[in-house]
Amino acid sequence: MSARATTRPGGRSARVQQSVHQAVRDLEAEVGRDALTVPLIAARAGVTPSTVYRRWGDLRELLSDVAVERLRPEAPPADHGSLRADLEAWAVQFAEEMSSTAGAAYIRDALLGDPEQGNAARCSDYAAEQLKAIGVRAAGRGEAVPGVETLLDVVVAPLMYRILFRPGDLSEDYTGHLVAAALGRLAPPPAPPAASPPAEAHKS
Amino acid sequence: MSARATTRPGGRSARVQQSVHQAVRDLEAEVGRDALTVPLIAARAGVTPSTVYRRWGDLRELLSDVAVERLRPEAPPADHGSLRADLEAWAVQFAEEMSSTAGAAYIRDALLGDPEQGNAARCSDYAAEQLKAIGVRAAGRGEAVPGVETLLDVVVAPLMYRILFRPGDLSEDYTGHLVAAALGRLAPPPAPPAASPPAEAHKS
Repeated sequence: MSARATTRPGGRSARVQQSVHQAVRDLEAEVGRDALTVPLIAARAGVTPSTVYRRWGDLRELLSDVAVERLRPEAPPADHGSLRADLEAWAVQFAEEMSSTAGAAYIRDALLGDPEQGNAARCSDYAAEQLKAIGVRAAGRGEAVPGVETLLDVVVAPLMYRILFRPGDLSEDYTGHLVAAALGRLAPPPAPPAASPPAEAHKS
Repeated sequence: MSARATTRPGGRSARVQQSVHQAVRDLEAEVGRDALTVPLIAARAGVTPSTVYRRWGDLRELLSDVAVERLRPEAPPADHGSLRADLEAWAVQFAEEMSSTAGAAYIRDALLGDPEQGNAARCSDYAAEQLKAIGVRAAGRGEAVPGVETLLDVVVAPLMYRILFRPGDLSEDYTGHLVAAALGRLAPPPAPPAASPPAEAHKS
């Protein structure tokens, strides 16, 4: 993670971040994103442009930072009583939020930042933390739980891939299918009642 | 797809595209990407800036277009004799290319373009076409083949997600594991040895 992660809450550094982020959000709503400049943002935030440049490097990095903050989940994932129901509900909400016009723009902004600064990684960390919370709750109910990396590969990655690269069906059927695939990795599907498919050959 | 898809090869439009793309590649190597401007590129390509603006809109869209062209696969996927071997080799190569410094920069540039122009979708189409070719060849050998959309979800999406959002292990073990998961969707995993060792059993 970047140096930002060690910012003391309530310190001057945190106050600067807060006022600059707020200035970006306000100005974006007022004058539109394309009209944003570092001097304009600094003036609104009551800091010098050099404070912004020193901390964020350039406008692109600042916008990336603001976008990631907007992608931060506001609440822990809802409890629907089972791992499958929790994952299904979370996946539906994630797909909706990330494929919305605003969500897709924030993701693209997050990706625009310098990869070394870790803004894109913070997006992934948010998803991982939510999935981990769902898993901890399910384990508390005695359910078997796939690892977070598996859930990222099987549920989150296809959603993000389709949002970014392959516009198409993100219906509840599709997200449910991804969750089923993730849970299917926990245990093989139950054998059909009569005999297992390879047994067909054995009959002859 | 965009209007570009209907450009006649060899026509004036195709010649303009070729010379402008070449100018971008040359100038990027000579003066670096941050020094690129539309007037500079137009002068090198021997066209007017307004030709560039009319066709691409702005510099970002042009750079996105050039990046996607660079991601176009140069050859059909190699034939290694089986679906699994073909997919494993393709996934290793895809992960290597896309996670290289150049590859990751092209992907980010492709994503910077206007989503309506379909540059990011063209990246995905390239992968889909390669996977389709592997599938057609495997079907010709009599092998069962997962659908292209399944392969995109199970093999391609996790690789792109990790390249863009979650830097980490893209080893041959990992890509092999993704291919195994995709092939595992074709048929349930073999039953444990005691119950029915399918292949062995047929010999007796």
